[in-house]
Amino acid sequence: MTKKILVLNGPNLNLLGKREPQIYGTLTLEMINAQMRDFADLSGMELDFLQSNHEGKLIDAIQEADGKYDFIILNAAAFTHYSIAIRDAIAAISVPVIEVHLSNIHARDDFRHQSVIAPVVMGQISGFGAESYLAALNIVYLKLGGNR
Amino acid sequence: MTKKILVLNGPNLNLLGKREPQIYGTLTLEMINAQMRDFADLSGMELDFLQSNHEGKLIDAIQEADGKYDFIILNAAAFTHYSIAIRDAIAAISVPVIEVHLSNIHARDDFRHQSVIAPVVMGQISGFGAESYLAALNIVYLKLGGNR
Amino acid sequence: MTKKILVLNGPNLNLLGKREPQIYGTLTLEMINAQMRDFADLSGMELDFLQSNHEGKLIDAIQEADGKYDFIILNAAAFTHYSIAIRDAIAAISVPVIEVHLSNIHARDDFRHQSVIAPVVMGQISGFGAESYLAALNIVYLKLGGNR
Amino acid sequence: MTKKILVLNGPNLNLLGKREPQIYGTLTLEMINAQMRDFADLSGMELDFLQSNHEGKLIDAIQEADGKYDFIILNAAAFTHYSIAIRDAIAAISVPVIEVHLSNIHARDDFRHQSVIAPVVMGQISGFGAESYLAALNIVYLKLGGNR
Amino acid sequence: MTKKILVLNGPNLNLLGKREPQIYGTLTLEMINAQMRDFADLSGMELDFLQSNHEGKLIDAIQEADGKYDFIILNAAAFTHYSIAIRDAIAAISVPVIEVHLSNIHARDDFRHQSVIAPVVMGQISGFGAESYLAALNIVYLKLGGNR
Amino acid sequence: MTKKILVLNGPNLNLLGKREPQIYGTLTLEMINAQMRDFADLSGMELDFLQSNHEGKLIDAIQEADGKYDFIILNAAAFTHYSIAIRDAIAAISVPVIEVHLSNIHARDDFRHQSVIAPVVMGQISGFGAESYLAALNIVYLKLGGNR
Amino acid sequence: MTKKILVLNGPNLNLLGKREPQIYGTLTLEMINAQMRDFADLSGMELDFLQSNHEGKLIDAIQEADGKYDFIILNAAAFTHYSIAIRDAIAAISVPVIEVHLSNIHARDDFRHQSVIAPVVMGQISGFGAESYLAALNIVYLKLGGNR
Amino acid sequence: MTKKILVLNGPNLNLLGKREPQIYGTLTLEMINAQMRDFADLSGMELDFLQSNHEGKLIDAIQEADGKYDFIILNAAAFTHYSIAIRDAIAAISVPVIEVHLSNIHARDDFRHQSVIAPVVMGQISGFGAESYLAALNIVYLKLGGNR
Amino acid sequence: MTKKILVLNGPNLNLLGKREPQIYGTLTLEMINAQMRDFADLSGMELDFLQSNHEGKLIDAIQEADGKYDFIILNAAAFTHYSIAIRDAIAAISVPVIEVHLSNIHARDDFRHQSVIAPVVMGQISGFGAESYLAALNIVYLKLGGNR
Amino acid sequence: MTKKILVLNGPNLNLLGKREPQIYGTLTLEMINAQMRDFADLSGMELDFLQSNHEGKLIDAIQEADGKYDFIILNAAAFTHYSIAIRDAIAAISVPVIEVHLSNIHARDDFRHQSVIAPVVMGQISGFGAESYLAALNIVYLKLGGNR
Amino acid sequence: MTKKILVLNGPNLNLLGKREPQIYGTLTLEMINAQMRDFADLSGMELDFLQSNHEGKLIDAIQEADGKYDFIILNAAAFTHYSIAIRDAIAAISVPVIEVHLSNIHARDDFRHQSVIAPVVMGQISGFGAESYLAALNIVYLKLGGNR
Amino acid sequence: MTKKILVLNGPNLNLLGKREPQIYGTLTLEMINAQMRDFADLSGMELDFLQSNHEGKLIDAIQEADGKYDFIILNAAAFTHYSIAIRDAIAAISVPVIEVHLSNIHARDDFRHQSVIAPVVMGQISGFGAESYLAALNIVYLKLGGNR
Repeated sequence: MTKKILVLNGPNLNLLGKREPQIYGTLTLEMINAQMRDFADLSGMELDFLQSNHEGKLIDAIQEADGKYDFIILNAAAFTHYSIAIRDAIAAISVPVIEVHLSNIHARDDFRHQSVIAPVVMGQISGFGAESYLAALNIVYLKLGGNR
Repeated sequence: MTKKILVLNGPNLNLLGKREPQIYGTLTLEMINAQMRDFADLSGMELDFLQSNHEGKLIDAIQEADGKYDFIILNAAAFTHYSIAIRDAIAAISVPVIEVHLSNIHARDDFRHQSVIAPVVMGQISGFGAESYLAALNIVYLKLGGNR
Repeated sequence: MTKKILVLNGPNLNLLGKREPQIYGTLTLEMINAQMRDFADLSGMELDFLQSNHEGKLIDAIQEADGKYDFIILNAAAFTHYSIAIRDAIAAISVPVIEVHLSNIHARDDFRHQSVIAPVVMGQISGFGAESYLAALNIVYLKLGGNR
Repeated sequence: MTKKILVLNGPNLNLLGKREPQIYGTLTLEMINAQMRDFADLSGMELDFLQSNHEGKLIDAIQEADGKYDFIILNAAAFTHYSIAIRDAIAAISVPVIEVHLSNIHARDDFRHQSVIAPVVMGQISGFGAESYLAALNIVYLKLGGNR
Repeated sequence: MTKKILVLNGPNLNLLGKREPQIYGTLTLEMINAQMRDFADLSGMELDFLQSNHEGKLIDAIQEADGKYDFIILNAAAFTHYSIAIRDAIAAISVPVIEVHLSNIHARDDFRHQSVIAPVVMGQISGFGAESYLAALNIVYLKLGGNR
Repeated sequence: MTKKILVLNGPNLNLLGKREPQIYGTLTLEMINAQMRDFADLSGMELDFLQSNHEGKLIDAIQEADGKYDFIILNAAAFTHYSIAIRDAIAAISVPVIEVHLSNIHARDDFRHQSVIAPVVMGQISGFGAESYLAALNIVYLKLGGNR
Repeated sequence: MTKKILVLNGPNLNLLGKREPQIYGTLTLEMINAQMRDFADLSGMELDFLQSNHEGKLIDAIQEADGKYDFIILNAAAFTHYSIAIRDAIAAISVPVIEVHLSNIHARDDFRHQSVIAPVVMGQISGFGAESYLAALNIVYLKLGGNR
Repeated sequence: MTKKILVLNGPNLNLLGKREPQIYGTLTLEMINAQMRDFADLSGMELDFLQSNHEGKLIDAIQEADGKYDFIILNAAAFTHYSIAIRDAIAAISVPVIEVHLSNIHARDDFRHQSVIAPVVMGQISGFGAESYLAALNIVYLKLGGNR
Repeated sequence: MTKKILVLNGPNLNLLGKREPQIYGTLTLEMINAQMRDFADLSGMELDFLQSNHEGKLIDAIQEADGKYDFIILNAAAFTHYSIAIRDAIAAISVPVIEVHLSNIHARDDFRHQSVIAPVVMGQISGFGAESYLAALNIVYLKLGGNR
Repeated sequence: MTKKILVLNGPNLNLLGKREPQIYGTLTLEMINAQMRDFADLSGMELDFLQSNHEGKLIDAIQEADGKYDFIILNAAAFTHYSIAIRDAIAAISVPVIEVHLSNIHARDDFRHQSVIAPVVMGQISGFGAESYLAALNIVYLKLGGNR
Repeated sequence: MTKKILVLNGPNLNLLGKREPQIYGTLTLEMINAQMRDFADLSGMELDFLQSNHEGKLIDAIQEADGKYDFIILNAAAFTHYSIAIRDAIAAISVPVIEVHLSNIHARDDFRHQSVIAPVVMGQISGFGAESYLAALNIVYLKLGGNR
Repeated sequence: MTKKILVLNGPNLNLLGKREPQIYGTLTLEMINAQMRDFADLSGMELDFLQSNHEGKLIDAIQEADGKYDFIILNAAAFTHYSIAIRDAIAAISVPVIEVHLSNIHARDDFRHQSVIAPVVMGQISGFGAESYLAALNIVYLKLGGNR
């Protein structure tokens, strides 16, 4: 059966590729999504995408993913560092969540070193640009029994 | 040309699979290495492995990797949290380093949330068990132009 | 004259009873609301209910309650710990607010010990499950001269 | 069978109603006790009262309550903030304890925000004056199956 | 060419002049806006106004201001102290932002001393009531070459 | 009646325009003073200027301003961050003080984020270069009933 | 009318003069009391003395002093640093309290620098040995209009 | 000459063996005392025992032990973490004190890691259950020249 | 032989009695000095007075007091909290120093609780208004053998 | 069957008895070992000894002790305070470990108060000189059923 | 061409050799200056000396040194730990500054471990007594091409 | 008699001159050693050199230096900031140690500001590149009576 993955992107990631390329790279979010879709097509996975600058919408989406998706790949962006509400939403559902970051958050401002959602996700991938998303997808694939 | 990757494992990882499987899983380090080698063989990459409980040996290995390897995949284990000497070794060479952890270090003891090496590596992958290593290898593959 | 009370619930409380019963109990929010309504009917109080995952909607609701309600019973959930905006909304209106929590927030994660809204509410009730809400209603009843 | 509740009050609460009415209200402890007794009489509960300025006496009382009372309602006053010995006594017995405070401790001096006993009690009620005690009694009543 | 300025106001500022005049003064937001418009008319600047209690809407507005406005005057109110998402939005656009506050945030509660957006704005004006906004407008005027 | 304003500048500001232009701009203190005088002449205000590297002289000047000036515009430079003696002098007089900074102190070294004088001044303007002074003067003008 | 002063001494002060003379001097508590009595006799003041190692007894004594004494001179010894219960007792009565210490508490262990009772007493005298008590008595004398 | 040892136990240790055996073991205090007496009888030492929930009584006992006992074995329980008064009593006498704990206090709640009395005792033994007391007695025996 | 005492007053104390009487009282520095001189005359002591807003002048005065004065009474005012230079001057001379404060510094802003000079003075008197100075003089008198 | 115990000593303990006798006593490590061996011979226990200045060697030794020894007595010396790698080694094996220290680490420098290995050992003995080791051996003996 | 060096000494260093020789040695400042002059004469360098207890004078001197001296050797004494104004003066000029201390500041009081000027000087030499100055001079000599 | 000096270099210093010249300069360790040897030859001192990436080897070397060398010049590199074991080794021997650093550690990352070895060395020299070593040698020379 086809596996379904929800790819959630938080605030300001819609500007990707247009702003601060020295930190976030030159790829747009659409281009990253396309790369993910290519990988997913080859692997028989189905992807849905959502980006929002509204914390509440991300919480709604996480809640509604329960029972519908096999995995969530989440780049919560700035919300990573203070949205306990998103943390609680993740803790409340049974879909495993993979936290991704384009930049190496541990090498930036002090306040970006802490992720309030990290303690409730399966794991975290940060610092590899678009490849952070692809590696997450690769892990989903392996965890779901890919290649077997 | 064949790409060479050095896989470095820090203190107590030689006990993997034998102890505390509820935290670290049941795979031994040898089994993880074997999985990595399988992936590498398919991708035309060459892997070398080193595990040591001695901080000094890891530093020596990192220094000597310069000019010989295209990438280092490093699980510094406990040294992650205090070995500024390993951090300086990484900063001193030009080989990119990927930091991996089997467990989600952000979901464990407070003192494990901080990685003194994270600010000088390319990126960090933590929490996926053996798949943390495979995802690192996948990123190496992508970064080195794999699939193109 | 009939007294009006607004019962506000914050993020993820719509999942109550469906998730993590070991922490939050097995009652759904609807069941708790029904218990409150039973008590209110007997006491001649009128209740309105609102739950939202959106901080902004809760702020709007608090602002609009001014002049319309005699009391607000508020479980701000995760927002309790960082929404200074909700705190400012409470401080800006003259309706007294009672802060409630299902679980004993002082016995959970460190970051849940602090409530940024506690300094501007009338008082706080935490740890009694659904009875936290009923006790709040009981206090409203007593404060409004109930039983006299 | 009649339920028995022990009401424990800590240091300086014997001065209630006589001092600092702007913080603690004008009711004396005797008047609050009388209100509680009225409620208890109607609900078929039996109350015993003890006030002491001596930490040791409160510890003795908590220990001796074990097996004799169904609930303890405790206002530990200043001891709330440093008596780990009272905390350990509560943890050592099986009688559930409800922590009450007349004033909203979260809105006063910083050192009053922390309760060292909160992590071992069932829950906490603070800020409602005498009604904090009555709400506690109401919760006892509900928890013991009142109204059924 | 006419210069365009966006004036953004955050949560609870819609209540201005109606609540807590001892802190925020008796002018309503509309009256402050009118004063700004008077100044702008004389100086050949064009102003747009937006107030919202929703963090997401403010982020959307900041993003959309890029390329359309010459300056943003922002009173983020409570969000000033925790919205890293607003900070990132400001950092992501090229329109200069002036941070204003009606009250002297450095003379109020400790948690109001810190502004998470201050490091990414051009500058900050706080403590002068409505004149904080007018001074911001004056600076815009001077920075845009006013009087020359 | 002509209003009198004292413009006080603290340590190292006599070097302005000569050193570190990337932080402080290329204008000298004399040039900024001249711009202020131009503005004051047009507005019927009278300005006096004092710059000193000696904390004691600034304290003397603040004390002596009492009863002689209508406003003080103060850039305390490095003293901003530790001179409690200057703070006490400001608190001891009845002349309102406006704190200005050329650079955005909130975007520089951590120790520059804190101003020990901010809690006792009317308000703070920082980050706009010479325009910080002009905006201060503009506020003085408005507060003193300018334009009416 | 003869003024009455209560002299309260906390834990371990009964050992004075017998132990650690390098810190506390060689005078016994009785000898200090005698010196105080001499001074009081000359000044028409009446002194009562109480020493206890029991926090509860000191609280009782402070409560009972209300209405009976004109001043309390209190050396709370170790309780100075953690007895919020004694602090609350002092705050609850209207008798002014003078805090004394034999040794200079600010020159000893870090934890002795903080006095939890200092914010509610009239003032503090520390570091002068027996003269700390005599100076306190002298201040009582002056405050009560002595020498006039 | 027969050596005399005072064994002091602090608050809640009278409940030993009856409560929380997963932390404190199943032995009662009487059983531990009996084991100690057996050892003492064989070694020609004489033991006295005191347990109290009252800080003041423990201080009195420590003071009175001076000159009467050769050693004190002290389990101050909860008082370990805040009773500076007990610390001062220990510092004031010349009898050496051995601090014991049944559980490993360094492996429990953060606030139990700190012992305010540790800096003034001879040494500390924690984590071995009843054997902590026996080891303390063994050390007394060795220090007093046992076996020689 | 006549004893000589230097009375040193720090920044802003020249304004005493003229400003903030709710904190510092209505006596001017001259009036306090006069009271001190009266006491000194009766006791055969000779007083010199110096007030300065300049840290350097106070340091010079302390250095020059060595060998000339028997005691220094010092109210360092704001310098109390940060002037390590004054601290070092005190430590460098052999004249004993008594630290005085008019207000109870432990009951004011947090940053006033710490005195950097307290560890090197003989003792500290704070909170008694002008009587703080007189008590200091009284202690000087007693320490110098007064009344004998 | 003969019980086997490994006695591990960390960095600089090879200098014991030769350096700083005021802190560590005059016994050499060899003399302490001899005392231990005497005790072990009488009790039918077999001891092996290892001292190293190399963290890696201690980790290797701890790992290799698994399955070969019944107990480890470990004085990790300076490593006590930062070697998370030794901590992880202890946590990874099933041999119980007793932590010993010659001096009372809680009475020395602040950084020596914390032991990163304490949370994973059975218990800790510190402050009794050579007797710390003998008491550990005594506990091993008791825990292994000695004397029964 | 002869190189010119300015040797600046901060507060209380004029007392050198006269006070606290156990910390600062028995040499007077004049004797150290003489040793420096001897060395300078041999090396063809010219030295000017200034000592002041006034922060402002040191700032003036640093500012005026710009363009006149090739190097500054600065012992800021107590100002080292809080004078941000001196730090800013150093940062504002282009003459390189060498920070020296007689005593090892890292081995003294905690507050002396931090140097606010260290981040803007070329380097720091501390702990060698008079030789700290001579070593600084030696470095100046080497940096200026000495011996070549 | 010829004086012997041991020059110890810690982790990654073997890479000197090859990596990060913007921080550490372009000289290799061999070149610095050669410069030192030149100076030593002229001054009749004998130098031995050791560099290691192994903390244990440095500890062994320090221990073995006792009685063989007159001085140790130590650049502990990264170990400076956490190796309490090296600190203890230095404290255990009687050879004086001079701590050197190529870069100004006080101007780099926060965690490099702290040296755990500084409190036990004679003094510290940092920030002068190779000249840090030469200045250390110069001090050795002066301390050993050079030039006399």
